[in-house]
Amino acid sequence: MIEENCIFCKIGKGEIISEKIYESDNFIAILDKFPLAEGHTLIIPKKHFETILDMPNSLGIELLDNIKRISLKLIEEEKAEGFNVIQSNYEVAQQEIPHLHFHIIPRKKGDNLNILKKD
Amino acid sequence: MIEENCIFCKIGKGEIISEKIYESDNFIAILDKFPLAEGHTLIIPKKHFETILDMPNSLGIELLDNIKRISLKLIEEEKAEGFNVIQSNYEVAQQEIPHLHFHIIPRKKGDNLNILKKD
Repeated sequence: MIEENCIFCKIGKGEIISEKIYESDNFIAILDKFPLAEGHTLIIPKKHFETILDMPNSLGIELLDNIKRISLKLIEEEKAEGFNVIQSNYEVAQQEIPHLHFHIIPRKKGDNLNILKKD
Repeated sequence: MIEENCIFCKIGKGEIISEKIYESDNFIAILDKFPLAEGHTLIIPKKHFETILDMPNSLGIELLDNIKRISLKLIEEEKAEGFNVIQSNYEVAQQEIPHLHFHIIPRKKGDNLNILKKD
């Protein structure tokens, strides 16, 4: 369940050090290395699932708990007035690392971020 | 748990007819009225939750089941080679209807869609 050369597997195992925000039994949350906004966080399952299609439904409860915990913290810390949860499956959908991850993007009035846009 | 003037509550109750893709105990999936791609689907809880912060974690299992079911169908029907799951919380994060919903955006090579971009 761990892929040898997968950077997110290594982060999950603690072999690569990253800025950890939170950790639960099956997930680790770290700061994105190329943040779109301060506090941009990735929630990553410790096991290697390529896409959301590979993750068992039973992890849905813990996943939601992670999403809510991290977003509430960003709001409390005034890094976010709102937030997006964004998740990409396969390269054609702009998935850059083939290990499932969920972006939590903090949003504020006047940020120049835009989701769901045609070029 | 139902808001009187909420369009997504009315769709959940069947008071407004929409193009239904799938329905489970707590969720309904419909085609987006302003699709970014053919098959662009919204997964909506039947109960009125404003944002993901308001939804109980226990619904995570059924939510994941819906996301996977709908995405697999889009892939099988060759409407998608990949897909994004996108979810917005609060107006500042481009949430347009204040009733929680999850976008499933089908992606194909050469579509002009772009997520996670600064303007």
